[in-house]
Amino acid sequence: MRIYDIITKKKRGLPLSREEIDFAINGYMDRSIADYQMSALTMAICLKGMNENETLCLTSAMLHSGETIDLSMFGDLSVDKHSTGGVGDKTTLVVAPIVASLGCKVAKMSGRGLGFTGGTVDKLESLCGYKTSLSPSDFLSQVEKTGVCVIGQSGDLAPADKKLYALRDVTATVDSIPLIASSIMSKKLASGSHSIVLDVKCGNGAFMKERDDAVSLANAMISIGRGFGRNVRALVTNMDVPLGYAIGNSLEVWEAVQVLMGRGETHLTELCVSLASNMVSLALKIDIDDAEERVINAVSSGLALKKMIEWISYQGGDSSLIANPDKLLEAKYKKEYVAKKSGYITRINAEGLGIASMHLGAGRVKKEDKIDFSAGILLCKSFGDLVKEGETIALMQSSSISSFSDCEAILNESIDISDTPPEKPELIYTVL
Amino acid sequence: MRIYDIITKKKRGLPLSREEIDFAINGYMDRSIADYQMSALTMAICLKGMNENETLCLTSAMLHSGETIDLSMFGDLSVDKHSTGGVGDKTTLVVAPIVASLGCKVAKMSGRGLGFTGGTVDKLESLCGYKTSLSPSDFLSQVEKTGVCVIGQSGDLAPADKKLYALRDVTATVDSIPLIASSIMSKKLASGSHSIVLDVKCGNGAFMKERDDAVSLANAMISIGRGFGRNVRALVTNMDVPLGYAIGNSLEVWEAVQVLMGRGETHLTELCVSLASNMVSLALKIDIDDAEERVINAVSSGLALKKMIEWISYQGGDSSLIANPDKLLEAKYKKEYVAKKSGYITRINAEGLGIASMHLGAGRVKKEDKIDFSAGILLCKSFGDLVKEGETIALMQSSSISSFSDCEAILNESIDISDTPPEKPELIYTVL
Repeated sequence: MRIYDIITKKKRGLPLSREEIDFAINGYMDRSIADYQMSALTMAICLKGMNENETLCLTSAMLHSGETIDLSMFGDLSVDKHSTGGVGDKTTLVVAPIVASLGCKVAKMSGRGLGFTGGTVDKLESLCGYKTSLSPSDFLSQVEKTGVCVIGQSGDLAPADKKLYALRDVTATVDSIPLIASSIMSKKLASGSHSIVLDVKCGNGAFMKERDDAVSLANAMISIGRGFGRNVRALVTNMDVPLGYAIGNSLEVWEAVQVLMGRGETHLTELCVSLASNMVSLALKIDIDDAEERVINAVSSGLALKKMIEWISYQGGDSSLIANPDKLLEAKYKKEYVAKKSGYITRINAEGLGIASMHLGAGRVKKEDKIDFSAGILLCKSFGDLVKEGETIALMQSSSISSFSDCEAILNESIDISDTPPEKPELIYTVL
Repeated sequence: MRIYDIITKKKRGLPLSREEIDFAINGYMDRSIADYQMSALTMAICLKGMNENETLCLTSAMLHSGETIDLSMFGDLSVDKHSTGGVGDKTTLVVAPIVASLGCKVAKMSGRGLGFTGGTVDKLESLCGYKTSLSPSDFLSQVEKTGVCVIGQSGDLAPADKKLYALRDVTATVDSIPLIASSIMSKKLASGSHSIVLDVKCGNGAFMKERDDAVSLANAMISIGRGFGRNVRALVTNMDVPLGYAIGNSLEVWEAVQVLMGRGETHLTELCVSLASNMVSLALKIDIDDAEERVINAVSSGLALKKMIEWISYQGGDSSLIANPDKLLEAKYKKEYVAKKSGYITRINAEGLGIASMHLGAGRVKKEDKIDFSAGILLCKSFGDLVKEGETIALMQSSSISSFSDCEAILNESIDISDTPPEKPELIYTVL
């Protein structure tokens, strides 16, 4: 078998066999296949696609390139959640304790933020002492005892995905549904949960700009998950505007706690309830209405908040910040961003706010960059709200006072105010 | 400007600007753009194409990546010829002295053989002492004095093409008309001739298997050449069967001399006359019929053969082998290949015969391989001939007796004999 022939076959639009895909991935890992050959192949895949079986085989090859986590000790109770990445998305911090408080097992690995999207692990690290790296036995033992553990992604899971993604990232071969679906699912499958709920974001602040593409990606991931015998459900959700009011690490933890206290922003709360209900429904094998009732009760009874305190505390984090979340709003410098004129807010560009927040210090431009946990943006107004000239739309926070001017310039470009109120968008487009 | 954005643009099928193409080629040469990025771009070009302007810009970028040869001292008399590569194609050896004997200036750089196709420079080296490498001033001075000089390709001409071709060769991105056209033309333009006649081969022994593709390639190259103010004409010719009787280095020189002696094989002679006539017509600005008459006279008068002796001798080669060509037929071992049954020869697969000849030692599997100049195949029969069982179809020659069995096995697969005579194919499909 030769990689040249495999590239040629895909260039001609023909489906690759399992053996050919294994040969390509294994050869890439053992360096017998060069980067320049792999990038030619991924470009051919971008342009010619992959059918369901090829996508399954690619996922399998990447999944088996490294270690896998065995969660069989939890039976069918293990459940994971994945979001394709958005701005202000702190849902993991909310749904993990909710579903754990209802008897599900959340053994979760989360990513770090890069560019304009944040990462759950960074957010958790704003709770001083929180350990994002645990030994496999400590990880499993915490899940057994508390029902929830969230750590950073291990490089030992699906290393082929890691290597391939780094290559795709510099060769403009990221935007391919089979490549994205297999990348996400190889990691999710390696992480071992029996049930998986996917939140596929769609809109200007998401990787998928079009709803049809988001649905295709969701279906591709569902098909892979089911091909491996897992329970998978996917929500396709709006990411034209940021999710909730807070963007930035400590700020997002604060907002997650607000949801668990029953006073979260409407859209964010709605999405958290829907994600958690689907997770509970899959893991406990109950219908969605029953699951939703239990989820709402877990919040209103305070059980979910109690579970969050238990989880953070068990994992070494400062849980007093959960009990008294207002400390999470502290920052060295704060500045108000005010309305330039009166009218309705007709656009809050999610990507723009992500970038503005990154400029304040909340995110990384390069992988090596350090994060300022207190930095970020706290919106005081939502999409569609009526504002008066000079009224505060958002609060900017940073440890660097000089970053405010850059941030303001971006906010000016990202927020529109008009005379006529906009149509309110749907939040959850569909559940697949 | 970022290569990532350029790759993305081409991936989406959008045309690249001159600045973007220059950025890509210059960056590839100064190593600021990596192989893996360039291979992603070439794959995108393979699948999304390039328009006429892009192809022109790419040619220009590669042409200007190195030195160019100034032939302006020869006015409009300089004329070059290029064949896209075939089996048994010794036309350069014939047409160069013909057109030089008629006052044209042939300052030519030719390639070496690789795989199943031979190279003019290798063939010339079978004339002991022939210098394939000359200083620029010696090269030009020989052209001035004798009208013809053929040397090996210099790495200083279009080095970007050389680097890019090596990458395409291992990433299955060779078969793209804009990439092939710009590759060939960047070298031809750098070589400086005012007029260029292209022989685009088509058929199983050529890179282009389909006539439509060969015509598209010819048109792309004509358009590039004219874009640079050169006179260009292209022939699209058949390469289903080998050209002439001889395949192998010394053997092909022998056959070239036969043509100049007026006793060449019909098809080979026809193609040489057509190529030479088009070269003379362009360089001397005369009509094609006039040019053809002069070409035929140059052969029948012996002037062309005399020019070949002068040329070879001037360039250090053993010209006694031209005067007494039968020495070129000598080989350590010879073996007849005989007809397995009686009937008409309905197939002589050009690629097959090229490979068989390579196995005898006439070609290179790898670039470093040494060539056995005496090795090759001399056909005694042509396509369509009636043969009897046991009659000799070809003579195999080699310095290695053990290579005959491999060669015979390939010939068995490459030559068909049937009861009904085949239709004779056209040789020259079209002149563009």
